[in-house]
Amino acid sequence: MALVISGLSMSLDGYITGPDVTREHQLGVGGDILHRWLWEPFPEDTAVLDGMVASAGAILMGRRSYDLAEGDGGWGDGGPAGQLPCFVLTHNPPAPETVRAPAVFTFVSEGIEAAVKAAKDAAGDGVVGVHGASAAQQCLAAGLLDEIQIHLVPVLLQSGTPLFENLGDRQYQLERTDVVPSGNATHLRFKVHY
Amino acid sequence: MALVISGLSMSLDGYITGPDVTREHQLGVGGDILHRWLWEPFPEDTAVLDGMVASAGAILMGRRSYDLAEGDGGWGDGGPAGQLPCFVLTHNPPAPETVRAPAVFTFVSEGIEAAVKAAKDAAGDGVVGVHGASAAQQCLAAGLLDEIQIHLVPVLLQSGTPLFENLGDRQYQLERTDVVPSGNATHLRFKVHY
Repeated sequence: MALVISGLSMSLDGYITGPDVTREHQLGVGGDILHRWLWEPFPEDTAVLDGMVASAGAILMGRRSYDLAEGDGGWGDGGPAGQLPCFVLTHNPPAPETVRAPAVFTFVSEGIEAAVKAAKDAAGDGVVGVHGASAAQQCLAAGLLDEIQIHLVPVLLQSGTPLFENLGDRQYQLERTDVVPSGNATHLRFKVHY
Repeated sequence: MALVISGLSMSLDGYITGPDVTREHQLGVGGDILHRWLWEPFPEDTAVLDGMVASAGAILMGRRSYDLAEGDGGWGDGGPAGQLPCFVLTHNPPAPETVRAPAVFTFVSEGIEAAVKAAKDAAGDGVVGVHGASAAQQCLAAGLLDEIQIHLVPVLLQSGTPLFENLGDRQYQLERTDVVPSGNATHLRFKVHY
């Protein structure tokens, strides 16, 4: 059965973007450093990314991530990892004629359980990669997230988009299963124990 | 010149205690796990702690940490690492007759610069260990903190005492200089670039 794994770049103080996010500056003020491991990778960064791409069988994302992908410079004409099937969690699917890659994107309006089930079915033995904070939060709160990958970046952004919110009134016990340090980030992997 | 280094145990979502801290439960609800690396150490945890103790020349702390130390079961009759000189940052020093170890504790009311200077002078070639979140925040905001040690614990506490607040209106660039994984925590060390 496919594992459901989120992967997010986060500052040491818990933000996945800096403040003042716009379409042109999707990582906000000071936030570009969060993705430096993707843009100016050390060999360790490349190895981590290659591992994620090689294991991925499907992508699950929120509507906001999809909209950004459809914007200028986005990858809306194909999946983020080639032609992987992408499931978009939304109560408000876009008009079919606006979807540039209808064979890649499936819109799921029946909630997080249905979206995860559809993505798992499509992923086969691969991983369902959860893209974006909102989808990851919904998976975690629903008890459907198997692992959290955090690319921990050595910066204090002090404001922006916090990763760990909207998780309901409980605590989560994790188990760190991997650590890969690079000159850009500390790549951490955690199993979630519900 | 002595380096000024804070050491704090933090949940993956940025808390140094859980909610509902009391004198009896100083780590709050669910927060005991943050100090498990001290109470039930793996060999890697012991090595990290031994390194901190061996390098320490003086301690800098806030009034709240001092009050907790003076409480039942506290170490107010001596320094946290034997008889190291401890400098307590406070606008309201306790009555001298209430101080159990007057040779150990010095109370500094002239602000963070004065407290750091006094601790550095006392530390000689040793490290000034900054104890508690408030003192660490004040040192960082004043540009006086050389390094941050974070003992990153695999748990999402979701509320409690956040570590990275009260840091002023700026971002901080860090450089990760060490990673020591254990079964309890990921011990991370960062240099601060102002």
